[in-house]
Amino acid sequence: MRCPIARGLERAGEWWSILILRDAIRGKTRFEEFQMGLPIAPNMLSRRLAALVRSGLLVRRRYRAHPPRYEYRLTDRGRDFFPVLVALMNWGNKHFPPAGASSSVLDARTGLAVEAAMVDRQNGREVNAVDYQFGPRAVQVKR
Amino acid sequence: MRCPIARGLERAGEWWSILILRDAIRGKTRFEEFQMGLPIAPNMLSRRLAALVRSGLLVRRRYRAHPPRYEYRLTDRGRDFFPVLVALMNWGNKHFPPAGASSSVLDARTGLAVEAAMVDRQNGREVNAVDYQFGPRAVQVKR
Repeated sequence: MRCPIARGLERAGEWWSILILRDAIRGKTRFEEFQMGLPIAPNMLSRRLAALVRSGLLVRRRYRAHPPRYEYRLTDRGRDFFPVLVALMNWGNKHFPPAGASSSVLDARTGLAVEAAMVDRQNGREVNAVDYQFGPRAVQVKR
Repeated sequence: MRCPIARGLERAGEWWSILILRDAIRGKTRFEEFQMGLPIAPNMLSRRLAALVRSGLLVRRRYRAHPPRYEYRLTDRGRDFFPVLVALMNWGNKHFPPAGASSSVLDARTGLAVEAAMVDRQNGREVNAVDYQFGPRAVQVKR
């Protein structure tokens, strides 16, 4: 498929895979850690982790030889999924607010909450579906 | 689920649903239009459209009485999904570049391509998984 949204989804576009990526970005690396946070059957979790490895979003690495134990680490490709999760978080917080706490994005250095938004780099305006639209093909972007 | 990413995905987190939203944001409203662009069986398309209506991302509206014809229009909630699609597009363009053309975001008024990025509103820095992280709960954001 030519559309980059569809191509991206082919690799990470499944409910569970996205939640696994969320947890990986939150620092989880081990099978048991992923399992603890997700109501997912072990065989399904194995399958989703393997698919994320195949797609190059995670790498599987042995961290202990006897008995052999593996962990899953984010690649750059997996780490670069972060803005998608942030956009999903913003949307979820706005349209499906929880009863109690909600999530936020923190500056990793200061620990303070920040406001993350998808903006037009040139003028700082928020990119919404009224003032912006998808274009059919790449055009050279002036920086 | 308390996590807004999970709550959001419950509503739009399925491959087909996200591609339907993409096409709705591109201006499609009719069943036949959605069907034309997606390799999806009609019964599956009906089901996904109905789910998006139930979740409040689309509304179903009769646009002709004889014979009855319906169209699907984005709600504000559906339209607000745009930044998620933009983030997915950026990620897809970067990590799964197509052989030929790729998509871009255009300024709807000028028709020119823009660079859309997820940034920290306070300092304009790109929000990546190294300098930023998810926080467990909402903290007041200073504007």
